[in-house]
Amino acid sequence: MKNTTNIRRAIRYKDTGVDIDAGDRLVDRIKPMIERIRIPEAINDIGGFAGLCAVPSGFNSPILVSGTDGVGTKLEIAFVTGIHDTIGIDLVAMCINDVLTTGARPLFFLDYFATSSLNVDIAESVIRGIVEGCAQSGCMLLGGETAELPGMYSPGTYDLAGFAVGIVERSKILDGRNCCVDDVVIGVASSGLHSNGYSLVRAIVNKFVGDDLSYVIPSIGKNLATILLEPTRIYAKAVQELVLAIGCGLRAIGHITGGGIPGNLPRILSEGLGAEIDLRTFKRPLIFDWLAENGPVEESEMLRTFNVGVGLCIVVAPDVKKLALSVLAATGQEAWELGKIVSIPYNTTFEERVQFISD
Amino acid sequence: MKNTTNIRRAIRYKDTGVDIDAGDRLVDRIKPMIERIRIPEAINDIGGFAGLCAVPSGFNSPILVSGTDGVGTKLEIAFVTGIHDTIGIDLVAMCINDVLTTGARPLFFLDYFATSSLNVDIAESVIRGIVEGCAQSGCMLLGGETAELPGMYSPGTYDLAGFAVGIVERSKILDGRNCCVDDVVIGVASSGLHSNGYSLVRAIVNKFVGDDLSYVIPSIGKNLATILLEPTRIYAKAVQELVLAIGCGLRAIGHITGGGIPGNLPRILSEGLGAEIDLRTFKRPLIFDWLAENGPVEESEMLRTFNVGVGLCIVVAPDVKKLALSVLAATGQEAWELGKIVSIPYNTTFEERVQFISD
Repeated sequence: MKNTTNIRRAIRYKDTGVDIDAGDRLVDRIKPMIERIRIPEAINDIGGFAGLCAVPSGFNSPILVSGTDGVGTKLEIAFVTGIHDTIGIDLVAMCINDVLTTGARPLFFLDYFATSSLNVDIAESVIRGIVEGCAQSGCMLLGGETAELPGMYSPGTYDLAGFAVGIVERSKILDGRNCCVDDVVIGVASSGLHSNGYSLVRAIVNKFVGDDLSYVIPSIGKNLATILLEPTRIYAKAVQELVLAIGCGLRAIGHITGGGIPGNLPRILSEGLGAEIDLRTFKRPLIFDWLAENGPVEESEMLRTFNVGVGLCIVVAPDVKKLALSVLAATGQEAWELGKIVSIPYNTTFEERVQFISD
Repeated sequence: MKNTTNIRRAIRYKDTGVDIDAGDRLVDRIKPMIERIRIPEAINDIGGFAGLCAVPSGFNSPILVSGTDGVGTKLEIAFVTGIHDTIGIDLVAMCINDVLTTGARPLFFLDYFATSSLNVDIAESVIRGIVEGCAQSGCMLLGGETAELPGMYSPGTYDLAGFAVGIVERSKILDGRNCCVDDVVIGVASSGLHSNGYSLVRAIVNKFVGDDLSYVIPSIGKNLATILLEPTRIYAKAVQELVLAIGCGLRAIGHITGGGIPGNLPRILSEGLGAEIDLRTFKRPLIFDWLAENGPVEESEMLRTFNVGVGLCIVVAPDVKKLALSVLAATGQEAWELGKIVSIPYNTTFEERVQFISD
């Protein structure tokens, strides 16, 4: 313990690295963006102690559906490239796509942005992406926390967490209990890697080019920065159209994230049911081939780590398959018949409930 | 770009530092804890794509109230001491106390836990604290995300974000618009520093003892670790009793966090209204005196940075003051008449809307 003396400069909170004024400037920049995505149910502006949103009318037994997620080490691609305006789309996508699996309508979103020392320009870019993600989801950005944690994060880096809430009528919750043998599994195309498997991606990329993501993959004709930052697709409009068009013929939706199809599709299948997934029905995006070849990464590991081109697996009754595919096409989604639900022995292990067919 | 050869060891996702099995073990440990805080409205277990919770019955026009927060650099006290089982209480408190300011009943909570490499024991401790915070709040832990971000966090460190949702009848929302001149400001005691100002606290403490938080402050008779980790008080039961007992005599509630009383009390005051806060009405906890003396920190900076012993400012009509104080006492809270609402000139700056009276 040091002795104190009588001549000391008084210490102020700001001296410790926390800049309250920067936070205020950021809030001023966010406010106008928010107006663009205001929904009628939202009640007050950002800035109060809490965000308020009415329960929408028209529900007999409304159920709130919530999810939280981050974007993992995809963040590091933003740090290395200095491109920060799309990672927020990924953040919203990861949360909202989870909420959508229940058939819910997205309602509102909140974000947590943590950094060592607030760079208002970077934070504004990140939040612009979040607002864009909310716009694509039809939900309101109802609040957020900007945390300065001096010393916890390296300069120029940050972490992000997102929280989404949606709403669904109790009798219309999708939870997979209605899936039957011979139901069709529709694949909906991902936009690329989405936000999973980036620790592996970076290990592979680093071997090749270190941090220089300007390298153009010949077979794709785009540089790594562009490919790796491609925002996660948000399926809000597609799923809502499907819910409206198909009713109870829509059985369940799986969001294909970390763990790939075998790690996620079984989450919506009851005991005794499995899925046969025919990998010959689609040509996976070339980035997955490049990763498999250059890791090298074995096929089984590819399937357990990446979405390999499938962002959602949507299970529908056979008689609505064509309608479902046309609704998805009409909302701009590339979708196809990917497989079917099959009977499997009870007590089959989780991942083995998905059987892949390939050449 | 390195050349690839034919003899290469295939790379697996786990090799990159992400341990999916550890995540599964953590979920297995969390599940039994959760059962203790189950509310009837909660629908499914942790593990699905999203958490489900019914909108409680009995509301004519239900409004959802949401808040997100972290615990700032109080985290570093947990890292230095290796005590991880109370920081989760702080996380819940920071979010739930914000939600309470509207008069809402807490409903559910979600957490985001991010670390470099998952230590299941530490994560379990943190989440045990979160569950305890949820129990104190009467809300359900409906979901969470455990993120492994290899390289982003130093070994042994982690970040936390929380997200809370509550519900309130539209006609009963507290937002300060009903505050009147001569309304009484009741102070409700904090448990100590709560979760704000820790960057300043650590700067002061570091000068004295570095990372050795076993140092006992003589005037307090407790060591720094104990004092600095004291969990943030959760006011859920107190506020809900108050809402029931007082009705519209309860005008507004301010949660005193970063920015102290002058940074938070004005958030619930309409234009033209200010507050006179009499610092002579209470003896602030001794830790604040120790910090002021040993920073040294000027009084105005103390007031702008810390809660100085006041966790909530509750504004009530003069005729219900006694009832409010007795209800708060009955719920175990130390509460007293701290000041009053006064008329001030329009366009008074934000922080100047609070005038302090001291010796």
